[in-house]
Amino acid sequence: MRLTNNLRKISTLLSAAGLLVLSGSLMAGDGYHSKYANRFETLPAISPIPANNSLTKEKVELGKMLFFEPRISASGVISCATCHNPSLGWTDRIPRATGHAAQVGERNTPTVLNSGFFTSQFWDGRAADLEEQALGPIEADIEMNLSLDEAIVRLKGFKAYQDAFAKAYGGNGEKQITPNNVAHALASFQRTLNTPNSPFDRYLSGDLSALTEQQKRGMAAFSDNGCSACHNGPALTDSLFHAIKVPGSTDLGRFLVTGDEGDKHRFKTPTLRNVAVTYPYFNNGGTATLEEAVQVMGKEMLGREFNKKTNADLVAFLHSLTGEMPHIEVPALP
Amino acid sequence: MRLTNNLRKISTLLSAAGLLVLSGSLMAGDGYHSKYANRFETLPAISPIPANNSLTKEKVELGKMLFFEPRISASGVISCATCHNPSLGWTDRIPRATGHAAQVGERNTPTVLNSGFFTSQFWDGRAADLEEQALGPIEADIEMNLSLDEAIVRLKGFKAYQDAFAKAYGGNGEKQITPNNVAHALASFQRTLNTPNSPFDRYLSGDLSALTEQQKRGMAAFSDNGCSACHNGPALTDSLFHAIKVPGSTDLGRFLVTGDEGDKHRFKTPTLRNVAVTYPYFNNGGTATLEEAVQVMGKEMLGREFNKKTNADLVAFLHSLTGEMPHIEVPALP
Repeated sequence: MRLTNNLRKISTLLSAAGLLVLSGSLMAGDGYHSKYANRFETLPAISPIPANNSLTKEKVELGKMLFFEPRISASGVISCATCHNPSLGWTDRIPRATGHAAQVGERNTPTVLNSGFFTSQFWDGRAADLEEQALGPIEADIEMNLSLDEAIVRLKGFKAYQDAFAKAYGGNGEKQITPNNVAHALASFQRTLNTPNSPFDRYLSGDLSALTEQQKRGMAAFSDNGCSACHNGPALTDSLFHAIKVPGSTDLGRFLVTGDEGDKHRFKTPTLRNVAVTYPYFNNGGTATLEEAVQVMGKEMLGREFNKKTNADLVAFLHSLTGEMPHIEVPALP
Repeated sequence: MRLTNNLRKISTLLSAAGLLVLSGSLMAGDGYHSKYANRFETLPAISPIPANNSLTKEKVELGKMLFFEPRISASGVISCATCHNPSLGWTDRIPRATGHAAQVGERNTPTVLNSGFFTSQFWDGRAADLEEQALGPIEADIEMNLSLDEAIVRLKGFKAYQDAFAKAYGGNGEKQITPNNVAHALASFQRTLNTPNSPFDRYLSGDLSALTEQQKRGMAAFSDNGCSACHNGPALTDSLFHAIKVPGSTDLGRFLVTGDEGDKHRFKTPTLRNVAVTYPYFNNGGTATLEEAVQVMGKEMLGREFNKKTNADLVAFLHSLTGEMPHIEVPALP
């Protein structure tokens, strides 16, 4: 009783200082925070910046232009933003990526949100970082279908790009329009596309009211059932490759990159950040709802069947991972 | 002298009231304003609103969502904004419209900027207004290639659209998702996409410094040479159909709508508002620069060859028609 009284006094003092929420978490807890919060990481507003590509305003501005630039595609109407659509959670919300001439690829478009936190890129990890990733879709025949040479020629034709490259990289703007600098600018822009302050992040930071009771149960189930084994770190992915056969998929995944038998059907763990707004799910986009996706993951990866309540709790938790979207005014292009 | 003195007094008074610019135009003039300004019209910020489609915030918001919605296309990745790209002057800046499966149409994509001021729509006027125009590209097989029935079914599948239609039209949201209401919302959004306050508009309103001397000469040449015969009204188009054969075009134009021999090769006069940022030019997009476009128009429509200086003056004038672009934050879609 004496302890309780002392805590009450402390609580009153903290409350007077406007710190009631924090004191609540320190004092009484909610039965979950003290046990689970330290098993997770909040999402920072800025992702790690590599030593060889300092993040500057000028590169980010240029990268934004390039991200929205459709004339670096063969048709002239497909940009990065076509499939990584800012209106659609920076993905396309269709099962499989659809690019040049309406060709449909094998895989679901990954969101670029928080992709700066991944330590491998693409479903099969064939690029190590955003710089390596950036140019692939321009040349891919089922995506933008343009040779890099032609893309560079087209960009050089615009004085506005010459100026923007000069600003970002110094020196002669036209000479600075190189594949490497295009990739660095696109990577820099993408590193700013993060979604901090989700309800889950606010909860981890001590706002115990940021999650519903159901979401807290879901968080506990997520951790206790081992989902965190792969979905961990700030973006809730280990960026590693795990064998999985989701409904309808025959895709060999990472094997196609490494040729190692052991990599057959392995895919990179996708981020769960904003998963509620980046449907449909899995490497083939063949699963439409979180309810189904959770069920599949339970069976395939954990060898268990979640009961209806646990499934609903997990889905509720996943909804708490939707953060603040970047506010994007479309750039004026030349 | 007495008149001059009186004008000076008036000028002093107006200047004291912060109206020096206006008084300057009334008093001294620049040799052009008094003669030419009344031959033109400024561009209002809002276009005329039809009696059967009142402009409401809710319709505009919904129309914006629909404008950016790619899932009302067969591929799921083409929206109105793909070809009427806000980054590219609300057109695509490629010669001819490129839509479903990279098919290339016969005609250049017209900008939607200020299209609420047109009294006919499309190059051939096959729609009378924006409401009639709005649904055509969804169904056109070389554009979005989706039946209206399917588009409506897809929209009905989203609760967010049910809610937005209920807000815009009242009653049961799902039932309000009709082709007519889709068209009205899209038209409402487009009526807000206007570009007032161009240098030319500011000049017409009395700011004599808003145009350069060369631009003023161009304005005079534009009027004196008869360009205004067709390019008149607030959007500098009469929305009527004139026979023209531009380089490379065999398109029969309005004839394909009316079947009248006299309509062969007739096309709607395009707006000249923002013409500097809506290249390339003409019905087939076959002309890349304003210099060439002015030359072609002189020869084809006016039967004269502009000398180099007059051509440059006209081009400089056309650059003064670029107004303030709408600031668009991409909408969040469901």
